[in-house]
Amino acid sequence: MISRKTAVLGAGSWGTALASVLAENGQDVMLWARREDAAKEINHHHTNAKYLPGAQLPSNVRATSSIAEAVSGREFVLMVVPSQSVRAVAKEVAPHLVDDAVVAHASKGFELTSLKRISEVLKEELPTTVAKRVAVLSGPSHAEEVICHSPTTVVVASENPEAAERTQALLNNSTFRVYTHPDVIGVEIGGSLKNIIALGAGLSDGLGFGDNAKAALITRGLAEMARLGMAMHAKPMTFAGLSGVGDLVATCTSKHSRNWRAGHLLSQGCSLDEMLSKMGMVVEGVKTTQAAYQLAKQYRVEMPITEELNKVLFANKDPRQAVEDLMARNMTDEMEAMIQPKR
Amino acid sequence: MISRKTAVLGAGSWGTALASVLAENGQDVMLWARREDAAKEINHHHTNAKYLPGAQLPSNVRATSSIAEAVSGREFVLMVVPSQSVRAVAKEVAPHLVDDAVVAHASKGFELTSLKRISEVLKEELPTTVAKRVAVLSGPSHAEEVICHSPTTVVVASENPEAAERTQALLNNSTFRVYTHPDVIGVEIGGSLKNIIALGAGLSDGLGFGDNAKAALITRGLAEMARLGMAMHAKPMTFAGLSGVGDLVATCTSKHSRNWRAGHLLSQGCSLDEMLSKMGMVVEGVKTTQAAYQLAKQYRVEMPITEELNKVLFANKDPRQAVEDLMARNMTDEMEAMIQPKR
Repeated sequence: MISRKTAVLGAGSWGTALASVLAENGQDVMLWARREDAAKEINHHHTNAKYLPGAQLPSNVRATSSIAEAVSGREFVLMVVPSQSVRAVAKEVAPHLVDDAVVAHASKGFELTSLKRISEVLKEELPTTVAKRVAVLSGPSHAEEVICHSPTTVVVASENPEAAERTQALLNNSTFRVYTHPDVIGVEIGGSLKNIIALGAGLSDGLGFGDNAKAALITRGLAEMARLGMAMHAKPMTFAGLSGVGDLVATCTSKHSRNWRAGHLLSQGCSLDEMLSKMGMVVEGVKTTQAAYQLAKQYRVEMPITEELNKVLFANKDPRQAVEDLMARNMTDEMEAMIQPKR
Repeated sequence: MISRKTAVLGAGSWGTALASVLAENGQDVMLWARREDAAKEINHHHTNAKYLPGAQLPSNVRATSSIAEAVSGREFVLMVVPSQSVRAVAKEVAPHLVDDAVVAHASKGFELTSLKRISEVLKEELPTTVAKRVAVLSGPSHAEEVICHSPTTVVVASENPEAAERTQALLNNSTFRVYTHPDVIGVEIGGSLKNIIALGAGLSDGLGFGDNAKAALITRGLAEMARLGMAMHAKPMTFAGLSGVGDLVATCTSKHSRNWRAGHLLSQGCSLDEMLSKMGMVVEGVKTTQAAYQLAKQYRVEMPITEELNKVLFANKDPRQAVEDLMARNMTDEMEAMIQPKR
């Protein structure tokens, strides 16, 4: 097999795990870490103690804190940076890209200032030739399990089928299965909105509401995700797949889920600032709640869970009251409730 | 509020919990227990130690081991017996029913000998006037949580809207929310098939495959459930609701799930007989796997998870090999995989 020149931008838990997958697949991979000491730790000790404690990384994952060094001459660039940093990083990346590069991203959120999806932001900032080949990687994939080779399935979507297939070919192996997907919009929206529901699941679990309540929250959450998605021209079936219900379930029910833990902290009386400080890493669901709240208004879609979360996060609403208000909504027929009319 | 004369047939965990809901709603409820000592325990101690250990039942739940006594003069009869016992119990019930009774059931499975849904069996055995008002109750609802008033949402479906509304009115309260649903077929099929996936989830967890793999299994399982359901004329949206994905998630991810525990025992090397003996209660997923395997052939629908489970349960296939074979299936595009052509 020919070793391909690849780069992963962002050395958080997910970026580090994806760089390890590429390395284990025999690709030449350069991992960009914002902090120089993080890059040094990866190069010298093959560890990333902050984000993947206890994991030994493949020795052929090399790291740098220079974007130019990471990206120059690379035919595949995978961006795994926080949603609100994507535009700035893309601006830095753009001048160094080769013309036929594929740029994929695995960020889950919207740009809050513009309410744009991540691939939309990338297309605005990348050179025209590269912008045609933007892809998104998503699905139920806790980094802590991928690094241990637990079986994992993800999807990659692109408007350009060849870009999706190239991404698939680089990342796919026997325990990390990559499927192509035709619906960029749906894959991005599903991966983003599920973090809102995961915050809610952490709240519900932390308040002791139980597994019946959480299953109801996940079900209503999926319906809410699909409603906004369809208004934004996603394909409804996408929400029934790995990047929809799959990722939603993984994020709402696993001890590895960062957004679940954030919701759990809120349930224990932490303020938003206290929670973020205790987490010490980006919790995408917080800004995604703000973005989705705005999008729901813009597209006139009912998103009761998002609305309640928004009140808990930004208007000091009591979490218990929020969950109880969701339960008490006045509905009698389930299908009428799921296919709610636009407001 | 007028106290309605109701009966619950079957004093397992779910029947006992539902009788408790009716009693707490102020209904006059008679609970039929097959074993006389179980009926005595409920009447004298207000407990059901085998099925709901530690729970105190409302004192107005009365029990009897006589079907005639349980059913006579009751305007609402809720059957919560194992799927393979429904026909025999319905035959016993039929002569004692009043003409305008509503009969609902909460059994999850198919009759194995006929491959019929439970409401189809009931309609064959009940008097014509009653058969028109058969309803099904389903949704994510672990009995252990309902008895503690943890918030729970369920659906009730009937071809007769009035029967569904009567069932809803008797059972609904502020922590046990009952929604009506138009799709009897989909509600019955979803509630039945999810037990197959839960067996698989218990296997996967017991083999240490992790939360990413389980999320993939749940996603593929949901697609498989919906494929058979649609072939049997269920409405696809039903699988996105409480009785579909909701119940599936609750059953695959909760410590309360009987079918998950059964799968977990199988993963630890128990044979089918050893597992059933250790469980000491009906594990609906076992016979549902057999029934669904037959139905998949009959309707020419691909059900890879059901097929693998069938091999594990009845052909001594190694569970690890079964899960690995499922992961290794040769697919490249997710949407093509979900909307598989009939065979």
